[in-house]
Amino acid sequence: MAGGKHGKLQPVDLSHHINAKSKARHPSPLKDIIRFMGQEGMISLAGGLPHPSLFPLERAKFDVLSPSALNSSHTEGGRAAGLSTLDLGRGDSSNGLDLTRFLQYGSGCGDREVIELATELTERVHSPPAAYECLLHPGNTNAWSKVVGLLCEDNDYVVVDEFTYPSAQALWIPVGIRAAPVQADADGLSATGLRDLLENWDESGRGARRPRVIYLVSVGSNPTGISISNRRRKDIYDVCVQFDLIIVEDDPYYFLQYPPYTPAPDRAAPQTQTTTEFLSALTPSFTSIDSQGRVIRLESFSKTVFPGLRLGYFIANPVFTERLLRATEVETQDPAGLSQAFVLALFQQWGMDGYFTWLQNLQCQYRQRRDWLLDAFHEHFAVVPASESPVPSSQGLVVCIPGKAGGTALRPVFRFVEPGAGMFVWSTFLFEDVRRFQQIKQSASQEDPEQAFAQELWMAMADDLVLLTPGSYYHPWQGADMVTTKARGAAPDSAHFRFSFASPTEEQIHEGVRRMRKVIERYWGAEAADF
Amino acid sequence: MAGGKHGKLQPVDLSHHINAKSKARHPSPLKDIIRFMGQEGMISLAGGLPHPSLFPLERAKFDVLSPSALNSSHTEGGRAAGLSTLDLGRGDSSNGLDLTRFLQYGSGCGDREVIELATELTERVHSPPAAYECLLHPGNTNAWSKVVGLLCEDNDYVVVDEFTYPSAQALWIPVGIRAAPVQADADGLSATGLRDLLENWDESGRGARRPRVIYLVSVGSNPTGISISNRRRKDIYDVCVQFDLIIVEDDPYYFLQYPPYTPAPDRAAPQTQTTTEFLSALTPSFTSIDSQGRVIRLESFSKTVFPGLRLGYFIANPVFTERLLRATEVETQDPAGLSQAFVLALFQQWGMDGYFTWLQNLQCQYRQRRDWLLDAFHEHFAVVPASESPVPSSQGLVVCIPGKAGGTALRPVFRFVEPGAGMFVWSTFLFEDVRRFQQIKQSASQEDPEQAFAQELWMAMADDLVLLTPGSYYHPWQGADMVTTKARGAAPDSAHFRFSFASPTEEQIHEGVRRMRKVIERYWGAEAADF
Repeated sequence: MAGGKHGKLQPVDLSHHINAKSKARHPSPLKDIIRFMGQEGMISLAGGLPHPSLFPLERAKFDVLSPSALNSSHTEGGRAAGLSTLDLGRGDSSNGLDLTRFLQYGSGCGDREVIELATELTERVHSPPAAYECLLHPGNTNAWSKVVGLLCEDNDYVVVDEFTYPSAQALWIPVGIRAAPVQADADGLSATGLRDLLENWDESGRGARRPRVIYLVSVGSNPTGISISNRRRKDIYDVCVQFDLIIVEDDPYYFLQYPPYTPAPDRAAPQTQTTTEFLSALTPSFTSIDSQGRVIRLESFSKTVFPGLRLGYFIANPVFTERLLRATEVETQDPAGLSQAFVLALFQQWGMDGYFTWLQNLQCQYRQRRDWLLDAFHEHFAVVPASESPVPSSQGLVVCIPGKAGGTALRPVFRFVEPGAGMFVWSTFLFEDVRRFQQIKQSASQEDPEQAFAQELWMAMADDLVLLTPGSYYHPWQGADMVTTKARGAAPDSAHFRFSFASPTEEQIHEGVRRMRKVIERYWGAEAADF
Repeated sequence: MAGGKHGKLQPVDLSHHINAKSKARHPSPLKDIIRFMGQEGMISLAGGLPHPSLFPLERAKFDVLSPSALNSSHTEGGRAAGLSTLDLGRGDSSNGLDLTRFLQYGSGCGDREVIELATELTERVHSPPAAYECLLHPGNTNAWSKVVGLLCEDNDYVVVDEFTYPSAQALWIPVGIRAAPVQADADGLSATGLRDLLENWDESGRGARRPRVIYLVSVGSNPTGISISNRRRKDIYDVCVQFDLIIVEDDPYYFLQYPPYTPAPDRAAPQTQTTTEFLSALTPSFTSIDSQGRVIRLESFSKTVFPGLRLGYFIANPVFTERLLRATEVETQDPAGLSQAFVLALFQQWGMDGYFTWLQNLQCQYRQRRDWLLDAFHEHFAVVPASESPVPSSQGLVVCIPGKAGGTALRPVFRFVEPGAGMFVWSTFLFEDVRRFQQIKQSASQEDPEQAFAQELWMAMADDLVLLTPGSYYHPWQGADMVTTKARGAAPDSAHFRFSFASPTEEQIHEGVRRMRKVIERYWGAEAADF
């Protein structure tokens, strides 16, 4: 743990947010003894660590790409030519990274140098106005689990986006925690909606205190692909101050922010930016506007280096990191040593600016993938601004197919917002015109016709060998009695699917969208009248 | 996860042990979709994984010792000469280990081949009679945290040894769980004591249901160094069947089992054994006698390979591993990829028998360290069988110093049992003869004279630059009102310290014990009369 204390604001007192369980944690008594161990001349018969001479690993070498290897102008050969080797030996002091310390037990908070690296990254990217500390964790899944263990009591409500990451919920459903969703638009979660929810919270009706935690994937949200705009962030932060909420910013896609989509013919090749240009073009994080210390940011190297590292860090008010460290000591201990060593050696090789160059190229790569998917929409469908579509609305685009043979009218299929970040396109499929859906709706036995038809459509696509993710996976959990489209108060005659553009090739994306188009024609097309 | 199902007994139904929280866990819906992804010709726009071509690591090489490198007859040069390199590349199929899969997200249960390795190890070492599954975890600290999350309700009691590992308790103290300790002797926890505890459990008096879980470090216990004998294990298992307890076997020191101590002059050099001889000389684990599937074994590579791996595995009844996997999905995900890749490549290089050779040499190394400490006791003190000591008892040894100048009587200082495994010697210091202790005891203000004097003694040793671990760290937590020696019902006029022989050199051990002897002389020696 290390702070960024110089010239920082003192966080406001937020210790009342620590839950009963977390308050009751004591430091491990074993840790008390450590300061005596460091004393000059001390012979310790106290430690229980295995002897490092008895570890079988003597040296680790990692061949890594250069920071510019992903520059799309590089050939495959050029990529390999840029390899360099990170070399970590036992007792080796040539690069200051003695492998031994990464093989031994750690203290819980992570290697001191990795913490310093995290702190330097935090200053460069977010420059938080209030004092904070960084604490390592083994990935954002575990980080969120520790944050719930820190802040939530059983049967609490947690404020989430209208559609939210399912694993985040799966964690707390078993202890009776429920989601209090707030609607969003193309600028992200609605600050007005948030204020309304909190202002009108009915404790006795809900059977639970007003929410004290808001969970946000604030850039390139999974699943909606939406980033919260700069202006909206400030409004949300103000509401959180007013109602004393802690903001948990789970932000793995932060560096994957893209310029707006331009159709292929007019698309300019991405220009190389300086680090300053690159960083200043990113939407400021909640951490960067957190003058009170009420943002707990979950940082991860999973999307920027690789997920198997299982390594990330909290950026948070020291009053929270102190308690999170207590949990770390008894729940996980330090992240894996080879992961810590690899990241440290990588940054030593690349330098901080090299890492930002890597991120810039990574951003271009994912941006290209986003463009492939949107290109495919344009190629296989008519994509029209929602305002000019058969189902007018103020934001986003509508994907349509031609109407009756010979007619010029378009039949709307799904609405979406072009993602400016992340890995996903979120789609709202519009079922009203679909005869098969109307049949299902009229069947008296069908409690949730929207989900029944969405499932049928999903299966039809899977049968034609194209797979989307059902939107139902991302429905906020509001309790067992609030699962159907109607009970959730969701818009009728529609359902959602998530497209991911992270993994498939350009050819796969085009072929996938072509297959989807064929299935859609069966349901939405003119011939669907005889379904 | 993989089972050892062929020819195995069907576990009895133990699903009632799964607690309310764990029962309420649902599989992550994202996982459902995975079987569709594997379908021939499927184009997936569903997955959210980052693209592996965008990971910067191309190749990892690890220089490792040979399995026989720790053979004490080898010189330092011989050790280095035996190095070989584990070479893991991207898309590399020469050794079947494509690095890419260890860089990507896993499914939660761990890499299939690592699971197979764990299963093969389990069969070779424990050959469990009932069907089981192996599930990876990131170290025994996290494994125990998941087991508590699986089995315990808030405010339960957990049966533990008379002295127990503090981090195991620190985890559950915040949710009101308390320890129900059972006395032990040189054969380990008393089966009779366990039966008495359970038979006479007073639910209303205790305010909690009868314990359903027993936590044991069954070989070379931390802190007592004691291993539960083969005979005693069977008795304990029978009691657990009778009272329907789940046995959690946290057994990181299993392979560090030693022959009895022989004083230096008569000590024979260790003989190399065949793998069969090595394995058959080990005390059978609880897992190996678990005909009902009521043992959850926590396996770790921390003491046998290195702790920084943060890698181990559960061996348990499939009804438990299924729920533990649900927790893994939302709490930690797979252990770190480089750790999994390293262990798999290491076993590929060494072979299973090579690993057992490594363990045999490791065992010899720690045995030698154990012997250094006991040698030092013999050198600096008089060590007499407890039965012939001034404080007769049937088991163990008593460390004494000479009595009054010129006299032949011995003054007892501490009692201990020679550890046949692990890294620790547990000592019961006897304060009755110590004048300073009697002074403290007579001071009316002192609530816990034993702990007050133990603290003074500990500080006196630390001032003289030798550090032991205070025994109080290992007191079972029975509630805030049961902390003093008296309230705990502990033996009066005594307190405990733990010696570790894992880390210091032979010279440090001797010098440490010499320093301790000088402090002890001040308190126990003839001149102490004038203290």
